[in-house]
Amino acid sequence: MKAARYYDRGDIRIEDIEPQQLKPGTVRIDVAWCGICGTDLHEFLDGPIFVPPAGHPHPISGESAPVTLGHEFSGVISEVGEGIDDLKVGDHVVVEPYIISDDVYTGPESKDYHLSKDMNFIGLAGRGGGLAENVVVRRRWVHKIDAGLPLDQAALIEPLSVAYHAVERSGVQEGQTAIVGGAGPIGQLTAAVLHALGVKVIISELSPLRRQKALDAGVADYAFNPAEVDVVEETRKLTDGKGADVAFECTSVQVVLDTLLDAVRPTGVIVIVSIWGKKAELDMHKIVMKELDIRGTIGYVNSHPATIKLVESGKIDLKPFITGKIALDHLVDEGFDTLIHRNERAVKILVSPSGKGLDQK
Amino acid sequence: MKAARYYDRGDIRIEDIEPQQLKPGTVRIDVAWCGICGTDLHEFLDGPIFVPPAGHPHPISGESAPVTLGHEFSGVISEVGEGIDDLKVGDHVVVEPYIISDDVYTGPESKDYHLSKDMNFIGLAGRGGGLAENVVVRRRWVHKIDAGLPLDQAALIEPLSVAYHAVERSGVQEGQTAIVGGAGPIGQLTAAVLHALGVKVIISELSPLRRQKALDAGVADYAFNPAEVDVVEETRKLTDGKGADVAFECTSVQVVLDTLLDAVRPTGVIVIVSIWGKKAELDMHKIVMKELDIRGTIGYVNSHPATIKLVESGKIDLKPFITGKIALDHLVDEGFDTLIHRNERAVKILVSPSGKGLDQK
Repeated sequence: MKAARYYDRGDIRIEDIEPQQLKPGTVRIDVAWCGICGTDLHEFLDGPIFVPPAGHPHPISGESAPVTLGHEFSGVISEVGEGIDDLKVGDHVVVEPYIISDDVYTGPESKDYHLSKDMNFIGLAGRGGGLAENVVVRRRWVHKIDAGLPLDQAALIEPLSVAYHAVERSGVQEGQTAIVGGAGPIGQLTAAVLHALGVKVIISELSPLRRQKALDAGVADYAFNPAEVDVVEETRKLTDGKGADVAFECTSVQVVLDTLLDAVRPTGVIVIVSIWGKKAELDMHKIVMKELDIRGTIGYVNSHPATIKLVESGKIDLKPFITGKIALDHLVDEGFDTLIHRNERAVKILVSPSGKGLDQK
Repeated sequence: MKAARYYDRGDIRIEDIEPQQLKPGTVRIDVAWCGICGTDLHEFLDGPIFVPPAGHPHPISGESAPVTLGHEFSGVISEVGEGIDDLKVGDHVVVEPYIISDDVYTGPESKDYHLSKDMNFIGLAGRGGGLAENVVVRRRWVHKIDAGLPLDQAALIEPLSVAYHAVERSGVQEGQTAIVGGAGPIGQLTAAVLHALGVKVIISELSPLRRQKALDAGVADYAFNPAEVDVVEETRKLTDGKGADVAFECTSVQVVLDTLLDAVRPTGVIVIVSIWGKKAELDMHKIVMKELDIRGTIGYVNSHPATIKLVESGKIDLKPFITGKIALDHLVDEGFDTLIHRNERAVKILVSPSGKGLDQK
């Protein structure tokens, strides 16, 4: 079968490989659509980061480069392994793409399995990936979805779960006000979750295209250009002078963090959603005098069921965020290239590993 | 009556002044003991900070320097104003020394009256102070205590409430493990609250005298010297390799903050209790990858009743933290001087404004 394989920085190859073996407790999923994630781009440009380099097998998967890429995917079950009786061939599914040690409790009460030692991702550290015609996944990480939900939109459930968990971390309540700093893919999806939960959403974003996308998608109530308006002042005006209840830092840019510290009310919460390559300068005096909370968030933990419900119920429409569809052969020259060079126009580009989805277009 | 009056930086005078007028809704308290706070020292050395300078009256109190100092005090009611029927002459009391706008809700449901605009303190921004023979305080801010509780220990309830609120902010549970960075007065009292709530307490502190004090007072289970041992490693050993559940930053020192980020477990909470005069460098990647919470805390908010209960029940013994008792006339030459120059030996120095407490010694 065809698969996108990561060898090293700048070296991704579309190859013909042997499908994985179906084992007891696993299912085979024929991949319908797989999104390209910022993480995939980072691996290509600056990696290997999550990918275990050749000769250094990952302690849980035992695999190293080359590995199959792709962790944001949807598909249809084509084979069911021994011992599984709650999934069947033909079921539409998405995957929570974790590689986690067998010693870790991953049941519904867990709030931290995603923070366990050596955690990594399917599609980065082995166990196949979504940028292949099919993938074999353990039952625990497979989530069934309604067959009525378009499979292209379903491929966005993985990044939406990241946003959902970030929103969970904030503790925001219906009727409150949130400010989202940065409207890239994760900022847009965070706004979508907030909007679906009945939160008033203010976006601060330099790019007019991204501001317009958030307004057109109906996920932002207000979208400000921080180069033109005083976002803190505007936020106060919209909140009876108090400030936003919660904020989401989705840029890893110092000035955005500083703005959010001022834009939230006393006892406000600022969730750090972005990955920072450098240290931040934090004004501790504001943290103390306003009793702010700065909360990190990464990935998701038991977040898929609630996220899927938001999409199935129609409270979140993922269609506006699909900005491109390509064949696997064009992963690098069309997909990566667009995200690197014309990044403001793109939110999520989907890949059809089999090419079947593209035929139906 | 005698009172310590703050005029300006380096200029505190013990003067004979007119007592405040008793008004409806207030009580007069004959001050038994008043502690010297780090804030008082800062006003003396670097101020005016909280004190409104002469000619710049505080927007709520309407007063400016000179003002009476002292906000950590206990005493006995000597006069009861009109309209108060739940306090009587002879009652032992402590004061929650806030100056807060009348427009702000300060009832039992409030979680943020202490963060309201122009909030300041009795004993810093007017309305009298505890470093005077008596003080007139509004009913709202007076908390009755058991007459069996020694009044010298009761004077420590104010700083203990700061510690109690910091612990509240952490969300720590009985049976969990906390690490306290820095065992100055607030670090010691934070350890005392944690210990009383059944939390295992690890202290990291350079000063051998302070480490010994925390161990002797029975509020720390372990006290490490970070110059000699790897505090992160020791904390992990004591927590099955996981790390502490919560941490308290009580030093405003960068390296202590860095240590605490490593010493807490994933999903751990770090409460910033100290006042930082500069920005901190925060390793955002750790905040994100461990899903840490950095939480500011300042003062107290509806924290006095629970704090008083901990002391009245005997769960916290404040006696070990009283390291000196002086007369008002020696506030600067004995009190401030000891805290500035022999600060490691002192936790809390109490002043007897009337001198009566010293006679009984």
